[in-house]
Amino acid sequence: MSKETNEGITVKKSEDFSEWYSQVVQKAELADIRYGVQGFIVHSPWGFRILRKIYEMLEHEVELDNHEPFLFPLVIKKENLDKEEEHAGFAPEVFWITKSGSKKMEEEVALRPTGETQIYPMYSLWIRSYNDLPYKGYQSRICTYRSEKTTRPFLRGREFMFFETHDVFSTHKEALTQVEKDIKISEDVIRKQCKIPFLLFKRPSWDKFKGASNTFTPDTLMPDGKRNQLASTHDLGQNFAKAFDINFQDKDGKKKQPFQTCYGPGIWRIMAALIGIHGDDNGLILPFDLAPKQVVVVPIFKDKDKKSVLNYCNELKESLNFSCIVDDSEATPGFKYNNWEMKGVPIRIEVGPKEVSSKTVTVVLRTNRNKIQTKLKDVNSEIKKQADILDKEIENKSKTYFKDNTHDAKDLDELKRIMKSYRGFVRVPFCSVDKDGEACADKLKEQTDGVNVCGTLYPKEEKASGNCIVCNKKAKHIVYTAKSY
Amino acid sequence: MSKETNEGITVKKSEDFSEWYSQVVQKAELADIRYGVQGFIVHSPWGFRILRKIYEMLEHEVELDNHEPFLFPLVIKKENLDKEEEHAGFAPEVFWITKSGSKKMEEEVALRPTGETQIYPMYSLWIRSYNDLPYKGYQSRICTYRSEKTTRPFLRGREFMFFETHDVFSTHKEALTQVEKDIKISEDVIRKQCKIPFLLFKRPSWDKFKGASNTFTPDTLMPDGKRNQLASTHDLGQNFAKAFDINFQDKDGKKKQPFQTCYGPGIWRIMAALIGIHGDDNGLILPFDLAPKQVVVVPIFKDKDKKSVLNYCNELKESLNFSCIVDDSEATPGFKYNNWEMKGVPIRIEVGPKEVSSKTVTVVLRTNRNKIQTKLKDVNSEIKKQADILDKEIENKSKTYFKDNTHDAKDLDELKRIMKSYRGFVRVPFCSVDKDGEACADKLKEQTDGVNVCGTLYPKEEKASGNCIVCNKKAKHIVYTAKSY
Repeated sequence: MSKETNEGITVKKSEDFSEWYSQVVQKAELADIRYGVQGFIVHSPWGFRILRKIYEMLEHEVELDNHEPFLFPLVIKKENLDKEEEHAGFAPEVFWITKSGSKKMEEEVALRPTGETQIYPMYSLWIRSYNDLPYKGYQSRICTYRSEKTTRPFLRGREFMFFETHDVFSTHKEALTQVEKDIKISEDVIRKQCKIPFLLFKRPSWDKFKGASNTFTPDTLMPDGKRNQLASTHDLGQNFAKAFDINFQDKDGKKKQPFQTCYGPGIWRIMAALIGIHGDDNGLILPFDLAPKQVVVVPIFKDKDKKSVLNYCNELKESLNFSCIVDDSEATPGFKYNNWEMKGVPIRIEVGPKEVSSKTVTVVLRTNRNKIQTKLKDVNSEIKKQADILDKEIENKSKTYFKDNTHDAKDLDELKRIMKSYRGFVRVPFCSVDKDGEACADKLKEQTDGVNVCGTLYPKEEKASGNCIVCNKKAKHIVYTAKSY
Repeated sequence: MSKETNEGITVKKSEDFSEWYSQVVQKAELADIRYGVQGFIVHSPWGFRILRKIYEMLEHEVELDNHEPFLFPLVIKKENLDKEEEHAGFAPEVFWITKSGSKKMEEEVALRPTGETQIYPMYSLWIRSYNDLPYKGYQSRICTYRSEKTTRPFLRGREFMFFETHDVFSTHKEALTQVEKDIKISEDVIRKQCKIPFLLFKRPSWDKFKGASNTFTPDTLMPDGKRNQLASTHDLGQNFAKAFDINFQDKDGKKKQPFQTCYGPGIWRIMAALIGIHGDDNGLILPFDLAPKQVVVVPIFKDKDKKSVLNYCNELKESLNFSCIVDDSEATPGFKYNNWEMKGVPIRIEVGPKEVSSKTVTVVLRTNRNKIQTKLKDVNSEIKKQADILDKEIENKSKTYFKDNTHDAKDLDELKRIMKSYRGFVRVPFCSVDKDGEACADKLKEQTDGVNVCGTLYPKEEKASGNCIVCNKKAKHIVYTAKSY
């Protein structure tokens, strides 16, 4: 692997984001796209370790919120897939298993495009009485399958990493409270821990999750100005309970239909945002807690000092409170610097004979590359200090970038002008986010080469003013628009 | 769920193991077999949590042994599946994806029956020089797919949980050292932590993993006397390196083919052994560290004491160093006792008004059910003490049971007699464990309604004596035989 990964990125992120992204994915060893089946990638160790951290953070949060972990099969029966009318819209994207060995199977089964139609038939068996409610379950570290036309690592795949909660409540009020809790988890994991800024939208009715009453999404912007939907929380109302015959006997003895929610943070999408938003021309940049290795120690020596320098490095590693690797491979120090910068290791420690004799180390931060000489005994506190600087830098940079890319437009011409130069979010007056607004959204898309209505800001929708940029009727809403992945 | 799970098991384990096993799987909420697609089960929360602990133990061990985690796609290209001649023997069991939406796919792809044929083509890209070796990778928390005729939860599924390491070395010697390390992991996780006894076999040549040079397996016995293979470690020699064109440039500048090993502990099989070997007529019994909840607190009160008892229970929970649940549901205490015994919670703490006023608790162990009154301030040390008693009991019981079920037979009649009354392992003289012994193994199977040759004991093979129980030629080996799942 070594040969391919140590050549730097050959384009600037600001000049050719798409190529920059592809090169980081490959050169930081996040994924290998040479598997040979379109839309199916190999999650390489370094990338997998980051993705696993995202999973672990989410698992921690939803279990604190009393969700039980379970695991459902990969496959779904056809009859279940079609049960909820709107949800059946997934059908054209579904992969089918039709043969085993050389024999045609008695019943074809689908690969799961998402979990509702496999989980809710079981919920209809599991849930009997108000005592069983609320029921909160989730599955993690699974993949989901959709036959997408165009695919891109961590943005769109035929196989992509999935995480989903599925909750059932006696009342709609409890369900709506859960929606707020789900949003809080997005705030904690995506904004606070991953340092990815986003706006939270209530999706327009024509762009809700298939079968949901309402859909709420944290959307961020990638450096090419396209919207990246990072997660979604759905108020499912009683739609699926009706379709899948989920009932419970309430305290009053009456049979009732429960209310449901589900929450799906996009593991891949969060990863894509981490890569795209934080990275620079030298490669990946990671928040300190997300780095698979937080510190790399690079020994620098001539032959006569080899033993003493390597000993010192290994002792240093043992004394650290952080995950650390000593890179004692045969490559040159410069080669190693580039390699670990590409991979986004937050802190590099350089150790040569001078450091050994003076009982010091040289600490270098991934972002600002300042070289700081520190005493060996102070190294843990220095790392902590530098880690905070790094996290703050990442956060500020991503916030600034995000703010700079939200604009206002009063009419279609202005929106088109903005899209030409800036892209990003454009805030516009719009006639309606209900069914009757869909025609305008379609026209907008046609006339702008794909600009979408993201939705209205949530929880506090902005006050409407002006006229719809498409039909010129009085606007009922201020909506955010953007091109999207 | 509550209704179905609180009825006890209606048969005795010693009288009808098969029915007992099915009932425990359902009533302890380990899996739900009502999903409606044969061989695909729902892993229910309680069962899933136990399986996750098995995964975590294995992940911990292989990462200590420097394995990098990765994740490969679900699907495999046909051309790769067939590349290793012997390994292509998996073909009749393979599921095929042939359609997306209503359209026939350009290229059909297989669901992975195991990882070699998907991972090794990438290894041939990743491995270039001796600097890249050893390369040690693994994937965890994935499922694998085989179209099995008969299926049984945790014993045989069309979808079943998988864990696999895949290692590449410059020399055969290093590969053989890895085999010993893999065996050590089985010893640590399966024998020590899960307390499942096993014999370690070198499989006869006709029963090796398809494409392997040698296969080593820890096999245990289920209470019905059938062998349960818990894991397998394979010395793959250079077979797959040849088939998949994996090469490296050695220090001497020459291009060479590396040696490979892989290790696959059977997550499901370990679970089946936990259930079958440790459980009793009241349900599941779990080693203390494997229990999803180690302690259940059951409050016992009349209305007037409700508040004080529940407060006391919650304070108790907060003060424990162990994972704990307070069961404050509406059910009766007796109902709760049965439910948590079924699920194998190691320790129950009963709290009534008497306990509250005397600042004590009553501790009851899952296995011996002794009631121990202890002071609140001593509860953590008492739990620790009882946990050790429980673990020791489980260990001794399983060891005794295992010893009692290994017998010797000098000829086929004796073996048949033993199989009628005891079953379990039968140690017999056998002509050969190489290809030339296969005919005898086939005959043995035919004449005994399915008794298999498990292999020779490893690492120290027993000294051969007597004549082959099938062909009566001088025996070269002592082999173990058993019926198997």
